[in-house]
Amino acid sequence: MNEGRTQKILKAMEENKIPQMIISDPVAIFYLTGKWIHPGERMLALYLNVKGNHKLVINKLFPQEKDLGVELVWYDDVEDAVEILSRYVDKDAVMGVDKNWPARFLLRLQELGGGSSFVNASWIVDQVRMIKDEEEQELMRISSRINDGVMEKVIPLVAKGMTEMELDHKVREIYKEAGCEGVSFDPITAYGKNGADPHHATDDTKGKRGDCVVIDIGGFKDNYASDMTRTVFIGEVSDRAREIYNIVLEANLRGIAAAKPGNRMCDVDLAARNYIEEKGYGQYFTHRTGHSIGLEDHEFGDVSSVNTDIIKPGQCFSVEPGIYLPEEGIGVRIEDLVLITEDGCEVLNSFTKDLIVVPEE
Amino acid sequence: MNEGRTQKILKAMEENKIPQMIISDPVAIFYLTGKWIHPGERMLALYLNVKGNHKLVINKLFPQEKDLGVELVWYDDVEDAVEILSRYVDKDAVMGVDKNWPARFLLRLQELGGGSSFVNASWIVDQVRMIKDEEEQELMRISSRINDGVMEKVIPLVAKGMTEMELDHKVREIYKEAGCEGVSFDPITAYGKNGADPHHATDDTKGKRGDCVVIDIGGFKDNYASDMTRTVFIGEVSDRAREIYNIVLEANLRGIAAAKPGNRMCDVDLAARNYIEEKGYGQYFTHRTGHSIGLEDHEFGDVSSVNTDIIKPGQCFSVEPGIYLPEEGIGVRIEDLVLITEDGCEVLNSFTKDLIVVPEE
Repeated sequence: MNEGRTQKILKAMEENKIPQMIISDPVAIFYLTGKWIHPGERMLALYLNVKGNHKLVINKLFPQEKDLGVELVWYDDVEDAVEILSRYVDKDAVMGVDKNWPARFLLRLQELGGGSSFVNASWIVDQVRMIKDEEEQELMRISSRINDGVMEKVIPLVAKGMTEMELDHKVREIYKEAGCEGVSFDPITAYGKNGADPHHATDDTKGKRGDCVVIDIGGFKDNYASDMTRTVFIGEVSDRAREIYNIVLEANLRGIAAAKPGNRMCDVDLAARNYIEEKGYGQYFTHRTGHSIGLEDHEFGDVSSVNTDIIKPGQCFSVEPGIYLPEEGIGVRIEDLVLITEDGCEVLNSFTKDLIVVPEE
Repeated sequence: MNEGRTQKILKAMEENKIPQMIISDPVAIFYLTGKWIHPGERMLALYLNVKGNHKLVINKLFPQEKDLGVELVWYDDVEDAVEILSRYVDKDAVMGVDKNWPARFLLRLQELGGGSSFVNASWIVDQVRMIKDEEEQELMRISSRINDGVMEKVIPLVAKGMTEMELDHKVREIYKEAGCEGVSFDPITAYGKNGADPHHATDDTKGKRGDCVVIDIGGFKDNYASDMTRTVFIGEVSDRAREIYNIVLEANLRGIAAAKPGNRMCDVDLAARNYIEEKGYGQYFTHRTGHSIGLEDHEFGDVSSVNTDIIKPGQCFSVEPGIYLPEEGIGVRIEDLVLITEDGCEVLNSFTKDLIVVPEE
């Protein structure tokens, strides 16, 4: 197991009086062991105890060649996995469990008395994961650098007469060619009025002259996610659309300027939101300003008006204000990822935010 | 809500002394309400009580236009969904919960005292779903009839030089063209030695003369799944492969003959397995004989040597023996779906099981 990460979790468990916990999320288990194990419906439980005695209880269907740095406890399909797990727990102490642990396991562990009480404790892991260590920071940089290159390849395609769905397939291919495992979320490649609907599902629409095109894309490189949005225009841009674009760009820059240690997450949201409100478009910025990102595209810690948590170095999140005017068919969003440093932030995307008009072919 | 299905569940709850339960599985909620609701991480809870007073607790993000036949209780993202749910439950009675209900909801309901004790109760719904009613039986027939047609279109493609991946894409297209919502599981189109590995993942292999090709495919039509396997040969078939084919075919027929009310599920498995063992290939039939099917490709109730449940009219499951000889590069599986009738079964697939050699092009 990754020693530094494990120690941070054990320390947080101690501070929060949760002496033992069960981690079942494959992403969290990868974070700690460096190994992806996808057990499907079968139980996979990493048991941590502040006194040591950690175990990974795992089905025999998932043999491990590599030493994961934790003792493995095997079971097979005819055995009672939870009962086997229960042999190692401290029955007289509070037990933390993963927020998504299925009831069939939790109820069985409760029946076996596998803890004096049971609490949701996965926020402990989520908070540790929120602060990227140096290895992760470098992987986030590399992933976003690749995303800059992908964006450069995607933008000229919007004026080639492809449908959104065709462009979607093309985007997925480009990530593969760029050495990514795949996309980190379903790409958004929305023409015209579709871009003005943040919930639009990719369809057979084709772009036309004057359309804005919202391109919100990201990939996984070495397990770490990228995520960037640019809005470009086909053939020409109206004065109205240019006005909206510039407001969103300024909101994006103000959000980024507020992304520094000591500020609260909501300050980033407010910096972007207040500017858009000032310009009279507050009601058209219909979502939070951003989300944390790392091994998953959306991680614990959102950039919203209600998140008053203080920003810390090592956090990585998106800043993505937008204005959506469905009646005018105009939608603009500009998104970058930021990595919080000791005194500010590093913007992980270097792809230009100048307004781009893609010549029609 | 579907009156007949709801009554069956309430009756089973009564018999099993579970006076109230929470159903959270979107498939089970569709089964009862006729409406797909995919709430993602948000709570969706259909609360049933044997005395009535059923409620569907649902986030405001999922507005319902249709009357679902149950009172809706709305909450929004800033409210405590479980607390709202807890207002309607009987705190002094046993509470059944879905096997997959996430711990974050169950722990909160326990904290609120939302039941005198908590038990996994989704098997009640699963057992009711196992017996298809007439409407479902007709939908299962239609879905498998379409699958027969798809198989007919797919088989000639195996000798056209496509890779498994290309064939996979083609299969998905054919289901769409046939009016299906999509495939009911990732299609298996495995050439030669890949067909001899039941865990093979579709890759860039191309078929060659003499290869067996395992084609295991199914689609969703009006929400109900089909699933059929045929094994065909490219250009020619060796005597050895023909021998194996005939053994698997006889095992498939014997399994089907055992699929009738009064027999146990394991009798179907044993009928197929004993024949293969008799012929000396027992160790090469490495999986159970089948699985139940309906709204999901794999449902509760497997056709295995350990399932001693008595077969009942209305059940629908697969009979799919196989023999896998990786060292010889031979893999054969033949699968049909059966629907249990009053005195036997109806085979839902009519596509031929004669040995097919596809001419090379």
